[in-house]
Amino acid sequence: MSGVTIGDIETAAHALAGQAVVTPLLESARLNEHVGGRLLIKAECLQKTGSFKFRGAFYRLSLLSATERQRGVVAYSSGNHAQAVAAAAQLLGVTAAIVMPADAPPTKLAATRAWGAEVITYDRYSEDREAIGARLAEVRGATLVPPYDDARIIAGQGTLGLEIAQQAAALGARLDAAFVPCGGGGLIAGTATALTARVPGIAVYAVEPEAFDDTARSLAAGERLANPPLRASEASFCDALLAPMPGMLTFAINRRLLAGGLTVSDPDVARAMAAAFAELKIVVEPGGAVALAAALTGKFDCAGKTVAVVCSGGNAEPAVFTAALDSARARASSAI
Amino acid sequence: MSGVTIGDIETAAHALAGQAVVTPLLESARLNEHVGGRLLIKAECLQKTGSFKFRGAFYRLSLLSATERQRGVVAYSSGNHAQAVAAAAQLLGVTAAIVMPADAPPTKLAATRAWGAEVITYDRYSEDREAIGARLAEVRGATLVPPYDDARIIAGQGTLGLEIAQQAAALGARLDAAFVPCGGGGLIAGTATALTARVPGIAVYAVEPEAFDDTARSLAAGERLANPPLRASEASFCDALLAPMPGMLTFAINRRLLAGGLTVSDPDVARAMAAAFAELKIVVEPGGAVALAAALTGKFDCAGKTVAVVCSGGNAEPAVFTAALDSARARASSAI
Repeated sequence: MSGVTIGDIETAAHALAGQAVVTPLLESARLNEHVGGRLLIKAECLQKTGSFKFRGAFYRLSLLSATERQRGVVAYSSGNHAQAVAAAAQLLGVTAAIVMPADAPPTKLAATRAWGAEVITYDRYSEDREAIGARLAEVRGATLVPPYDDARIIAGQGTLGLEIAQQAAALGARLDAAFVPCGGGGLIAGTATALTARVPGIAVYAVEPEAFDDTARSLAAGERLANPPLRASEASFCDALLAPMPGMLTFAINRRLLAGGLTVSDPDVARAMAAAFAELKIVVEPGGAVALAAALTGKFDCAGKTVAVVCSGGNAEPAVFTAALDSARARASSAI
Repeated sequence: MSGVTIGDIETAAHALAGQAVVTPLLESARLNEHVGGRLLIKAECLQKTGSFKFRGAFYRLSLLSATERQRGVVAYSSGNHAQAVAAAAQLLGVTAAIVMPADAPPTKLAATRAWGAEVITYDRYSEDREAIGARLAEVRGATLVPPYDDARIIAGQGTLGLEIAQQAAALGARLDAAFVPCGGGGLIAGTATALTARVPGIAVYAVEPEAFDDTARSLAAGERLANPPLRASEASFCDALLAPMPGMLTFAINRRLLAGGLTVSDPDVARAMAAAFAELKIVVEPGGAVALAAALTGKFDCAGKTVAVVCSGGNAEPAVFTAALDSARARASSAI
């Protein structure tokens, strides 16, 4: 059976109470009209450090023993897990060293350092971040905090699903489906565990960028398949969703609980960012906007349905954000 | 005595429950560090129709008699009150005609029409919107819904202050001050009524653009003073805050309850918009960002203090928003 239960997620929610933001479930009459259904949008970009990653990171660090806290933590991340671990470490008085791609978005690098973490960069096209992180943790006697393939991290991220179920129930809404951005699969594994436990019959879909659809292909094949090796010329717009393949733990959960995988193009994502700007007044980064893109492009027909849509992060570079607004405007008179 | 009491605001809050969004009170470690205090930021840009105006408009329309509902409503507005009245009217099945400046932001004009309202444009440099609105209401037998100088509108806007008091208390925070954007003064009159009733000793400040500081000057003079007549060449960046002078009702309240007025420049406002983008992941329009600008520029020293800051609206044109991000980047390496 799965390594993560609804009880584990409730335990994580208790540990996160008063630490993580209970992010709002927003709604726009105009977006609802556009899809002919009801979209309940979880604005997780408003979370501490700008993404859902704070949930798993803080929960995992809160479980460290006194000795482990003294020895510090190590993590590897393209940016959002980095900031989350750095912030959780600062809040808990733990030292953190974070391995990040040298070409990670500059604001993600700067934000991680601003949280007091030591940042160690590597070349993501030729070096193995997992090996670098593991070696560093071993040398320092520090605890490695993996980005997704860890039951406690998954339980922490799952608190987002628990909140969606509670917030939708408070609105009197019955959820038919949920769309969740998917990189390594930790957020959706936890969220699907919570949602399927609390909302019987809900269909939970992973959403990925077209060129990084490892989870969709793995779900279809029934086994873990990798993305092609990253090349600098193809490094995607959706920098938060470039994990090389589904995690072992996450895929074991996702294979059992998910209804399927959806994919979206970069222009779809830019339009979703523009729609979130115009209709919801939230800043969503490319990787955080894929689920909204799936809803707005009709990759899944939302007509007559109530669908939870997770906007998982908002750490967009200003230049990337303004380019997305510009390209969406160039393509249509309406942002939607 | 004042025409609006804390009891009136509680009544309005009851009418708005389940209709208005309880917008979150956000916080950023980086912004707190920047000011040396604690900023609790009311993200009212996440309200329905993108601004606080929905509170007053929906509450006022909910009080219409059956006969009044049949005859419809009329309003005049530069954009946010327009959308709010149009949306409230649609939700309540009332027809709405809205008088708007011909040069109002295009997305505000389009959004008002999208809510099903009839939009009547006028030239704000030569025509009197109040006269046009009053004549239209008379001809149609419709109810005029004024933007701010009305006790029921003020009570509706005041629910924002009530929420701040409740949310700050839930965080265990004791508010020393509150900064609130000010145009005609309805939002701050209601908010100050709620906050001074619930948080004894709090200092509430109106924040205005430098060139439209009628409330600051009126508070200093002890009488209502007007802004210079609007000229097209000077039509401000902060399009939501161009009311010609304080309202009679609003000024009677504000004169009694406010600690004073603060002013900010357009570049200060652009930097605050960029800081809200980078640190809070919210979209704030120029007029909605003046209070945050006052906090970040140190117009009022927040060191050691806990200050509620209202970001009152998010209906920014994409081009205005991207220009603000660009200009803030050009002026400093940090957005703050």
